[in-house]
Amino acid sequence: MFEKVKKMIQQNDRFGQLLGVEILAVGEGSATTCLKIKKDHLNAANVVHGGAVFSLADIALAVASNSYGKIALLTNGSITFFGATKVGDTLTARAEEVGGSRKLGHYRVEISNALDEPVAVYTATVYRTGKPLL
Amino acid sequence: MFEKVKKMIQQNDRFGQLLGVEILAVGEGSATTCLKIKKDHLNAANVVHGGAVFSLADIALAVASNSYGKIALLTNGSITFFGATKVGDTLTARAEEVGGSRKLGHYRVEISNALDEPVAVYTATVYRTGKPLL
Amino acid sequence: MFEKVKKMIQQNDRFGQLLGVEILAVGEGSATTCLKIKKDHLNAANVVHGGAVFSLADIALAVASNSYGKIALLTNGSITFFGATKVGDTLTARAEEVGGSRKLGHYRVEISNALDEPVAVYTATVYRTGKPLL
Amino acid sequence: MFEKVKKMIQQNDRFGQLLGVEILAVGEGSATTCLKIKKDHLNAANVVHGGAVFSLADIALAVASNSYGKIALLTNGSITFFGATKVGDTLTARAEEVGGSRKLGHYRVEISNALDEPVAVYTATVYRTGKPLL
Repeated sequence: MFEKVKKMIQQNDRFGQLLGVEILAVGEGSATTCLKIKKDHLNAANVVHGGAVFSLADIALAVASNSYGKIALLTNGSITFFGATKVGDTLTARAEEVGGSRKLGHYRVEISNALDEPVAVYTATVYRTGKPLL
Repeated sequence: MFEKVKKMIQQNDRFGQLLGVEILAVGEGSATTCLKIKKDHLNAANVVHGGAVFSLADIALAVASNSYGKIALLTNGSITFFGATKVGDTLTARAEEVGGSRKLGHYRVEISNALDEPVAVYTATVYRTGKPLL
Repeated sequence: MFEKVKKMIQQNDRFGQLLGVEILAVGEGSATTCLKIKKDHLNAANVVHGGAVFSLADIALAVASNSYGKIALLTNGSITFFGATKVGDTLTARAEEVGGSRKLGHYRVEISNALDEPVAVYTATVYRTGKPLL
Repeated sequence: MFEKVKKMIQQNDRFGQLLGVEILAVGEGSATTCLKIKKDHLNAANVVHGGAVFSLADIALAVASNSYGKIALLTNGSITFFGATKVGDTLTARAEEVGGSRKLGHYRVEISNALDEPVAVYTATVYRTGKPLL
């Protein structure tokens, strides 16, 4: 199932493709994604755009929360930034489920740089629609 | 000043350009951006990607918080989603300052669709570095 | 219905009673609460405790989201502080629904001081259990 | 230093005293607090009040972020709830620093029940004033 979910999302997540996000691993309620930072990910202050880091983390969340084969949709996400990133660096986002019920799932995503230093933390809640993903 | 900031960000925000975000207006601590939703903004469930909506809102925040001509960097952002969006729809994000001090600025960004229905709300805090943007 | 909900919560919310929170008004998906700041609400730095302000806001949310007569439970809450408060000041929290679906409700709560200056903003999502409150 | 900070906050945090929060441990950027749930902590739906859990977590944050002997003030806090608690249960909150700079500190606080099951997660950012606490 996990490989099927990974393949399905990799092929159909056009926003992830536009940004260049890769899915590295999928498990039960968990996922890892990465993004090599290019100039296209920078903002006007020449810093990696918050939206690029959020998107990387949100894709890890999406894969983790859809790992059960049912569609789960983001309802709340909170991100905190505490480290800078440069062009050429590769960011990795690791999502894991921290709790949940039949209808809601709660996730924590840690984003780190190539030196494994923490760059941001993303906490998010999804609504489990129950509809099949595949 | 506001027009200069708008022009500077429009020309140098490569991530905003990659996504197709447009800056419509800039004022003192406020800004409006918009994004026409294309297939590139969808996720594997064929829904607009959370990262695309976040990025649109975050660019409105960036313009609003840099409107004073000094660089302000995102430290905390919380987004809540409560409406779906389709391909072809145009999303608008309106950012305004709700409070702050010398070092921190607090913003609220409302995201709505072409019918002016609310789609998401983004609350964010920036750190004011004091460094000139221009 | 609104008066019944208000009375029921006022009589049974023991935590609100412990803190001294008053419910001023209830409407459809909206509510107003207030709290007169006493020494008991201060932290070790002699500033109003974040937990006291959060609780005031959260009670406004609870009343607003239970105004339909069904039990709704908090799942996610984000609070941002940007103003200080002194002993003797009265804080007011105004909650209103900004969106939602059958199962989820999204609320915004603005907290202001006696001069109507903004002190904090609270954004929260509740899960609608469907169980009767009364 | 850590014992001094612990003692100072225990003696002067009147809101923590009102609720019955105990400080169990203080380390460099970390702290543990606990709260025995009584009827006074319940809301009108007979569930532990979100404000009581938030306050417990926020006191752990306050102790952890003041552990350096300088006053740090909460600017942003996000809490996610995913477990219920009963009267008689004891909740424990463990705060640790996950990142920061000279002016900002970022913390994660995990709240669990007596069976060490996760009940809530609190992510928060403080502003470091630099003023001495003691």
